[in-house]
Amino acid sequence: MADIKYEIKENLGVVSESPKGWTKELNLVSWNGRTPKYDLRDWAPNHEKMGKGITLSAEELKELRDILNDMDL
Amino acid sequence: MADIKYEIKENLGVVSESPKGWTKELNLVSWNGRTPKYDLRDWAPNHEKMGKGITLSAEELKELRDILNDMDL
Repeated sequence: MADIKYEIKENLGVVSESPKGWTKELNLVSWNGRTPKYDLRDWAPNHEKMGKGITLSAEELKELRDILNDMDL
Repeated sequence: MADIKYEIKENLGVVSESPKGWTKELNLVSWNGRTPKYDLRDWAPNHEKMGKGITLSAEELKELRDILNDMDL
């Protein structure tokens, strides 16, 4: 991960927090100076380390929202 | 990935499809025979290969749903 530069432009929400303080967050993140993308990912406290995650477009978030709203959660 | 066994128990929805036919999907997936988890992931056509993704609990999906419903997408 050492070569990846990122900047969290906006924190949209915390989905969960683990006992060790890692948080699963939805953020708007710019990778290597590029246009920011939505990003769902695990982070260590203070965003010092990043875990697994995926990036999503606004269109994909809209679809995901509609899918989740149709589910019996 | 060769050692990972998985079974897609339920397809909850397709978030997007790439020009090459890969789809980003929300599924309920059992990994190595364990209790199924929600899984947001890219898949090759016919689920022959899997790409990056994350697993989520029902609680995490609820939080994510609420975050998405609060956003101006």
